[in-house]
Amino acid sequence: MLINGAPGSSINAEDRGLSYGDGVFRTLRMQGGRPVCWERQYAKLQQDCSALKISCPSALVLFSELQQLGKTQSEGVAKIIITRGVSSRGYAPSAQSETTRILSVSPIAAYPADYARQGVRLYVCKLRLGHQPLLAGIKHLNRLENVLASSEWQGQDVQEGLLNDVSGNVIGGTRSNLFMLRGKILYTPNLSRCGVAGVQRARVMDWAKQHGVACSVADIRMEELMLADEIFLVNSVFGLWPVCELAGYRRTEHPGAWKIREWLNDERH
Amino acid sequence: MLINGAPGSSINAEDRGLSYGDGVFRTLRMQGGRPVCWERQYAKLQQDCSALKISCPSALVLFSELQQLGKTQSEGVAKIIITRGVSSRGYAPSAQSETTRILSVSPIAAYPADYARQGVRLYVCKLRLGHQPLLAGIKHLNRLENVLASSEWQGQDVQEGLLNDVSGNVIGGTRSNLFMLRGKILYTPNLSRCGVAGVQRARVMDWAKQHGVACSVADIRMEELMLADEIFLVNSVFGLWPVCELAGYRRTEHPGAWKIREWLNDERH
Repeated sequence: MLINGAPGSSINAEDRGLSYGDGVFRTLRMQGGRPVCWERQYAKLQQDCSALKISCPSALVLFSELQQLGKTQSEGVAKIIITRGVSSRGYAPSAQSETTRILSVSPIAAYPADYARQGVRLYVCKLRLGHQPLLAGIKHLNRLENVLASSEWQGQDVQEGLLNDVSGNVIGGTRSNLFMLRGKILYTPNLSRCGVAGVQRARVMDWAKQHGVACSVADIRMEELMLADEIFLVNSVFGLWPVCELAGYRRTEHPGAWKIREWLNDERH
Repeated sequence: MLINGAPGSSINAEDRGLSYGDGVFRTLRMQGGRPVCWERQYAKLQQDCSALKISCPSALVLFSELQQLGKTQSEGVAKIIITRGVSSRGYAPSAQSETTRILSVSPIAAYPADYARQGVRLYVCKLRLGHQPLLAGIKHLNRLENVLASSEWQGQDVQEGLLNDVSGNVIGGTRSNLFMLRGKILYTPNLSRCGVAGVQRARVMDWAKQHGVACSVADIRMEELMLADEIFLVNSVFGLWPVCELAGYRRTEHPGAWKIREWLNDERH
């Protein structure tokens, strides 16, 4: 782990990241000692920092620190946390505070291979996401809703939880973005009121554009999701998982998802 | 500062308090080396921990650690942070994680004396609080809404920001609870959808009970607030501040607020 560039494992207990969750983060794959899809990952980090008016470290600094960590753990999952740093008491950010950056690389969880092929079982979380347009889409450190939702199920029968919002719209997985295929159209939830708009979601939208497939960002109801031909989840750690079971309904064929997964696996895209 | 009972100033960078804001906190006064209103403060801490299924350290441990800190800083502001601790990756809490406790005491900010007597100017924040009934009332570490709201104004012309929710109900200050007096009735916002239900709010409600004053927890609209005879804010650091200016409207008489403030200043209540 590198903290502000130096090897370490602890941060100042007065950091605003701890006090208020005042920061953002990224979780991404490392392959061959390098961060995968780095340009997109950095662009999203920069965008999230900018939304919270946190000064973002340069791409060069972060990339070289990830490479340094990649020397001892060349394949794995990197996590980058950027906080507004330590500042005087109180919610109001002070102009002087210096960003804290925490970078780490750890081994990747060994998921069964059939998650990517046959798919995963999706549990419908009882928790409904609240609306906060000013924070929607941002991968910030205020993640108690995800923590509570993720504690609704246990064990290996279910691989991910589906989150709806207070208005009953489908938003995504607790740690992934969701897509559905209906006919020749790809749909993904509107994340302007809540949810996190991840890098893999943007990549799938690019796949659609490159392949002449219409991709609609929409308010999706649970009953519409149930009518989908295919449903799949994406994130930067597991890539793409088709959904094989949702609310008691099973799906065995995922030709569209398999095609998109293959495209996503090629880092050049 | 004491971290898990030992003098220190840093925490494990993998603590869930930092990763997800997965914890709660209290800010309270220290007087004569002892925490003020300790029983109420501890009860609220315990209640908040319980709501998030975080195991709360015992009152004895926390009290004796605060007393220890009180030896070098007998008058000041104490902060207690309790997090779910360090656990394996991912949002889902693991059963094994051990609570982290971070206790500190710092000097109290020197507020001008006329804030408590003549009152403070209240700015109406543009940010609207989102609804999340599962987190409402809890003083948890997900405080980005408060951070963003508090960065809407600067300087000394305004002492606190007024927060409304997405439905247009008044919720309170960015760091305080709000009351209004209309006729012989005391009103305070309903905090079942958002906001923090602080210890001083509970004490004011007790004042009302003891003095035979009706206290209504209600959905309050801005236009109703403007018609109040008196408006005041409470928190455990500044105590009670009447509001002397809100949305261009000035108030100079605060007899009710002064009476309640005097009662609150007596720790036995």
